[in-house]
Amino acid sequence: MIARPHTAVEFDPWVRRELDAVEAALNAWVPAEAPAGLGEAMRYGVLDGGKRLRPLLVLAACEAVHGQRPAALRAAVAVELIHAYSLVHDDMPCMDNDVLRRGKPTVHVKFGEAQAMLAGDAMQALAFEVLTAPAQSSDAAFDVDPALQARLCSLLARAAGHAGMAGGQAIDLASVGRPLDEATLRDMHRRKTGALLQGSVLMGAACGSTHAAAWQALADYGAALGLAFQVVDDILDVTQASDKLGKTAGKDVDANKPTYVTALGLEAARRYAVELRQQAHAALDRSGLDGVTILSLLADRVVEREH
Amino acid sequence: MIARPHTAVEFDPWVRRELDAVEAALNAWVPAEAPAGLGEAMRYGVLDGGKRLRPLLVLAACEAVHGQRPAALRAAVAVELIHAYSLVHDDMPCMDNDVLRRGKPTVHVKFGEAQAMLAGDAMQALAFEVLTAPAQSSDAAFDVDPALQARLCSLLARAAGHAGMAGGQAIDLASVGRPLDEATLRDMHRRKTGALLQGSVLMGAACGSTHAAAWQALADYGAALGLAFQVVDDILDVTQASDKLGKTAGKDVDANKPTYVTALGLEAARRYAVELRQQAHAALDRSGLDGVTILSLLADRVVEREH
Repeated sequence: MIARPHTAVEFDPWVRRELDAVEAALNAWVPAEAPAGLGEAMRYGVLDGGKRLRPLLVLAACEAVHGQRPAALRAAVAVELIHAYSLVHDDMPCMDNDVLRRGKPTVHVKFGEAQAMLAGDAMQALAFEVLTAPAQSSDAAFDVDPALQARLCSLLARAAGHAGMAGGQAIDLASVGRPLDEATLRDMHRRKTGALLQGSVLMGAACGSTHAAAWQALADYGAALGLAFQVVDDILDVTQASDKLGKTAGKDVDANKPTYVTALGLEAARRYAVELRQQAHAALDRSGLDGVTILSLLADRVVEREH
Repeated sequence: MIARPHTAVEFDPWVRRELDAVEAALNAWVPAEAPAGLGEAMRYGVLDGGKRLRPLLVLAACEAVHGQRPAALRAAVAVELIHAYSLVHDDMPCMDNDVLRRGKPTVHVKFGEAQAMLAGDAMQALAFEVLTAPAQSSDAAFDVDPALQARLCSLLARAAGHAGMAGGQAIDLASVGRPLDEATLRDMHRRKTGALLQGSVLMGAACGSTHAAAWQALADYGAALGLAFQVVDDILDVTQASDKLGKTAGKDVDANKPTYVTALGLEAARRYAVELRQQAHAALDRSGLDGVTILSLLADRVVEREH
């Protein structure tokens, strides 16, 4: 078990170490040998890129509750697979029709649309396979209790499905070219990006034991952080160049999609992001947990990021 | 617990009763209220159609091992959701580009490509949500043991993912216009349709307790039945009219896809289907289980079906 860091100065080493652990785990789990190029497309879609915010949230939340790291590492891989599959499908011509992601051609540009759809489908299935597979080591310490496996599947499926991410995407789809009020915009984002970010925090928390009040506080933290993430995304879409974002900038505005910047204006959107960070910090204070420094600093990073 | 039927004469009533149970369960689980038309597209994609062969296999295998019916009913819903999502995605323009399914316009024709992709994605997530959700009744008899929930997720994820269905679809994709030898054709179908049919049998078997030999025999039954299903599918594609199939006939031949009919010829393909049925029956005999009549009759139905 890695010692829990408690000071800001330990944050960057923690992030570097955990990013390495996540990358190694993804590399081990996502198969190169899947048939007919499918494995190659899956690996292209999920390896070597991305901020890995969701895995970091899983691992930080697990540490905050003194949870089981082997379970959290699997949850980290699973949630990143769900996130990555959603990007692969979202980039396709029938959705956002984007050709650039993380500074590289999108999966359908490189492998064709049919393979991209299959790779996304297989990545979603793999997420649940990772959560429920037998330990890959003979060491029983790597085993995950079946009840926890089922709990993690439940949290992930709900976050990814119709009530969460997929539902939010459907609202997004229906909203192009229509003015949305702020409440509807918030509901869309609470599902589209918020559900999986909050789900990451809760999956990490499920790896340990928490009182109901701490669980609710972590859920509130995840909700505030999830919304902050989207508000900042909308700000960056209009303030940053494509090369910095690693994806096409100005896309949402060009597509006439409702964003926080169009709904609130740029300055008010910035103020809202800072307010949401304060809500996230307040929720961590309410949790009564003693190891929340990393979660707190992750909220800072979400709001202060430049890409 | 419903009494296990043991005679052929009880087969049709058994099927009718279980089809009603599956339809009611699907109707209860697939949400009408999912946002922005997503629920409507999901329900259109899975309700009121299809032979429900996979759910029937789950329920029949569960009966054969005296398993827990509440768990099997959930597994039946989950596996049909996976099957239905695969059809929704498979019918899309970037895959088979089919406009007719079960005698109705395909999901993307009715709801648009983006919504069809999202509906498929959400159906896959829902499958795992159904397997792991808390009991919907206050009656503890409806609860499913978390270890069984995890086991069912594991079986379904592996059958649906890169090593199973999605992998088979990738081979299919890569094979259009190329002659495949019979071994490669069999490997493709073992994954593409066989994995989920076999997975259905094993999910049902997991709902009870079996000796290793019985488990292996049921796996062999599922493998033979899965291959038989595909051989018959290929035969029907060239011998039946579209209105009888409820989908576009002659599609595989037109698309220059390798099939058992093109690989073996029509008569040899028919003999092969009968041989596979015998293999399925022999596996049931080897299982030593006393309640396999329905499984046996389901294998007959697969080979004798006309659509």
